Formats: sequence, C-alpha cells, structure tokens
Amino acid sequence: MLGETKGKKSARISRDEIKQVIVIRKDLDMGKGKIASQASHASLMAYSLVKEKHPDIADIWFNGGQTKVVLKVESLEELNSIADKLGRAKIPFKIVRDCGRTQVEPDTETAIGIGPYYSKDIDKITGRLKLL
Amino acid sequence: MLGETKGKKSARISRDEIKQVIVIRKDLDMGKGKIASQASHASLMAYSLVKEKHPDIADIWFNGGQTKVVLKVESLEELNSIADKLGRAKIPFKIVRDCGRTQVEPDTETAIGIGPYYSKDIDKITGRLKLL
Repeated sequence: MLGETKGKKSARISRDEIKQVIVIRKDLDMGKGKIASQASHASLMAYSLVKEKHPDIADIWFNGGQTKVVLKVESLEELNSIADKLGRAKIPFKIVRDCGRTQVEPDTETAIGIGPYYSKDIDKITGRLKLL
Repeated sequence: MLGETKGKKSARISRDEIKQVIVIRKDLDMGKGKIASQASHASLMAYSLVKEKHPDIADIWFNGGQTKVVLKVESLEELNSIADKLGRAKIPFKIVRDCGRTQVEPDTETAIGIGPYYSKDIDKITGRLKLL
C-alpha cells in the first residue's frame, strides 16, 4: 500500500487513474436498447453525484476521455452486495431503479453507476466482475 | 402548427414534452457492453451541451424522470443524415466518435445523443427510426 495514496490529496490527478464503472444486472434479460438506456441513466446519475461531491475528479474525467467500463452481475443480491461494499468504501455510486414501463417490473434495480472515481479503489470491489 | 409553440417560450415546460434520444449504429455489430458505453457517452455529452445552452430544459428533464429512447440506424450515411437534419433544425446533439480501443476502428462514429429537447421537434427527424 505504500505510496498508493500519492496524488489523491493533491491537485494533480491523472485522468488515467480515474474511470467510471457501470454494473448491469444480466439476470433481467433486458434487450440491448433497454440495457443502453439503463446504462446511460446510471452514468449520468453517478456523474452528477461526483460533480457535486468531487468536482475536481468529475472535471478531469469529463475532459479526459471519459473512460467507462460496463460490467455485469447475475442477480439482485450480487448488485446489492456491490452497493454495500461501495458504501462502506465511500465510493460515490447511484443505483438505477427503473419505473418499469417496459421489460421489467416497476421499481426494479437494474444497474449501478460508479464514479468517476479512482480506478484502484473501484477495482477492489468490482475487479472480479466480468465485462457485459 | 397553430398552438404548437405554446409553452416553448414560457417558463413552464412540462417534463412530458421533453426527452433525450440516443441513436446507435447497428451496422457496426457492437456487443451489448460496447453499445451501453457508447450510449452512455452520447447521453452525457448531449446532456452537458443542453445544460450549457438550455439549462431550463436540462433541469426539467434531469429532475423529471429523464425519459430516454434508444433508436437505431443501419449505416454511417443514415447517422450523418440525421445529424444534418438536427443541425438545420437547431436541435442540440452530439456525435460520439469512439477512440477505437475495442471492437471498432479509431475515430468511428458510433452514436448520436440528442437533447434533452422538445419531443415534437426531435420526432420530426427521428420519428421513423426503429427502437434498438
């Protein structure tokens, strides 16, 4: 862990250290368009949260390529477990609840938007998830 | 057209009149995760543009359910044709160009994010496109 916090408290954060991760529930069998809209929702909600809480991180990511990675979980339990860990680690995230007009029941948790935030912190929690 | 501009110049815009449309190129055969990331990119870029140019519209949409519709085109020509029409109609949009690290060639146009903006104006241009 030595040296790992370098830059975290400083004004210089490299855009390569920051990413946004979107986690999608695969078990809901959503179509491509539905997945795309849930991911977009997750991305924008999480970005807005970070823009408010950590504007420096948000701006570096926004102006520096906006790296996004889309991962999958296989159940609501797995989604909630990720959310719990993110909360404990104080990593900014938003859970997307769909209004349920198409394809899923109302108020279904479909996705999580995480960050933009430090990749190394996010990876500790989502590192074992597979790409969607 | 009579009466159609009602509300457009006034402070009261109903959230039901406003949506964001994301148009995805189907001919690139992108996977679900790639589509989700391109759509998220389109959504955030277009939203940021609208937030700058039409903050009232952006805020009503953001706080009012964030209606998003994901449509498809079958070619770059069709994507460009939509972009031309949006430009002429002065509807805010952003074209996503992918850096091409995975699945597509560098600088490939993969998607368009449109609005949030008045649904009736967007529909005149994208109304014949199919859902992704």
